[in-house]
Amino acid sequence: MITLYQRTDCPFCWKVRIALAELDVEYETVETRLGEKHPEVLRLSPAGTVPVMVDGDAVIWDSAVMLDYLDGRYAPGRLLPASPAEEARVRLLHVYSDRQLGTCLRTLVFEMRSRPEREWDRELLARGREEWAACQAWLERELGGRDNFGGEFGAADCALASRCGVAEAYGVAVDAAYPGLRRWFDGAKARPSWQAAYPASFIRSG
Amino acid sequence: MITLYQRTDCPFCWKVRIALAELDVEYETVETRLGEKHPEVLRLSPAGTVPVMVDGDAVIWDSAVMLDYLDGRYAPGRLLPASPAEEARVRLLHVYSDRQLGTCLRTLVFEMRSRPEREWDRELLARGREEWAACQAWLERELGGRDNFGGEFGAADCALASRCGVAEAYGVAVDAAYPGLRRWFDGAKARPSWQAAYPASFIRSG
Repeated sequence: MITLYQRTDCPFCWKVRIALAELDVEYETVETRLGEKHPEVLRLSPAGTVPVMVDGDAVIWDSAVMLDYLDGRYAPGRLLPASPAEEARVRLLHVYSDRQLGTCLRTLVFEMRSRPEREWDRELLARGREEWAACQAWLERELGGRDNFGGEFGAADCALASRCGVAEAYGVAVDAAYPGLRRWFDGAKARPSWQAAYPASFIRSG
Repeated sequence: MITLYQRTDCPFCWKVRIALAELDVEYETVETRLGEKHPEVLRLSPAGTVPVMVDGDAVIWDSAVMLDYLDGRYAPGRLLPASPAEEARVRLLHVYSDRQLGTCLRTLVFEMRSRPEREWDRELLARGREEWAACQAWLERELGGRDNFGGEFGAADCALASRCGVAEAYGVAVDAAYPGLRRWFDGAKARPSWQAAYPASFIRSG
């Protein structure tokens, strides 16, 4: 049985839970808390961050590598396409989700999460929202009218769904100005993996 | 013919050149300069950084994805092992090289490159050298007496060779306290790909 060390509202962990649900792979979780270093996580990972996945002898401490591994081990071709050029396209979207989109949404989330609304830095939030709009425009172009970003809801879709979910939970949902992206996100939310993987802490606080 | 937008002494670009040489794939380069944004790079990449690789219709703007692509397109299994668990191990070493090792060596290189020796921040450099020692100890354990980090000089080896090459060029070569890592690096330097990919600017200034 797979063990996932995680924090329920961390988008990197959320992405992995969506992928596990898409592949119908069972797992157990060990919950960690923001700002607290779990001793097993520190022992297993040179990065010291969640998620960390243990599957028998395999110890994986990077979320993108987890999706590669899950694809190869449990459902070859389901999360990543077989053609090298198409695979590269999906991998780049995954990188974009982790890096460009992650950085921009972190600006918004950290500010809103770390202090009461009356103390929010409005300029910082406005800049974050502008970047988020630019990211949505880029993603709308990349989607190019397709149903999903790669394959039948593959690695890039799992990654981007969790990011858009974070955005929605913090009041900056995918904008109607990007109809393709919005349709894609509605589709993501209608999948069983969405319910299965949705952060417990968002439900409690929502 | 592949086009690689690059900067010769950037370790991410260097890694890709080593991989191209290992696979004996021909390419042409477009040189960019530190601190200067090349218009084609800005057009092709949402990150706006080098390396960017163009191979026909495929435009790849992340160096790790480039190695995946080169493996799948030109020599399946040569840079990444076929077994999911073994592939994950090599991918994690590649992530470690790009992230943990990259961060620690950047501290050293940026300081030494950006001002004359008499102005170096000695405390910062001492901290960087301690981190570099910790990274070498981690890598020595991961290598575990093998000849290479994965396969016959695969993706992780290409990545780590360029990082250790940067370290050596800046006077903090792999230490004799890590004999396995040192033997591996000597082996890397004896490969034809080392000569083929070595940064032109290091040769000029060396």
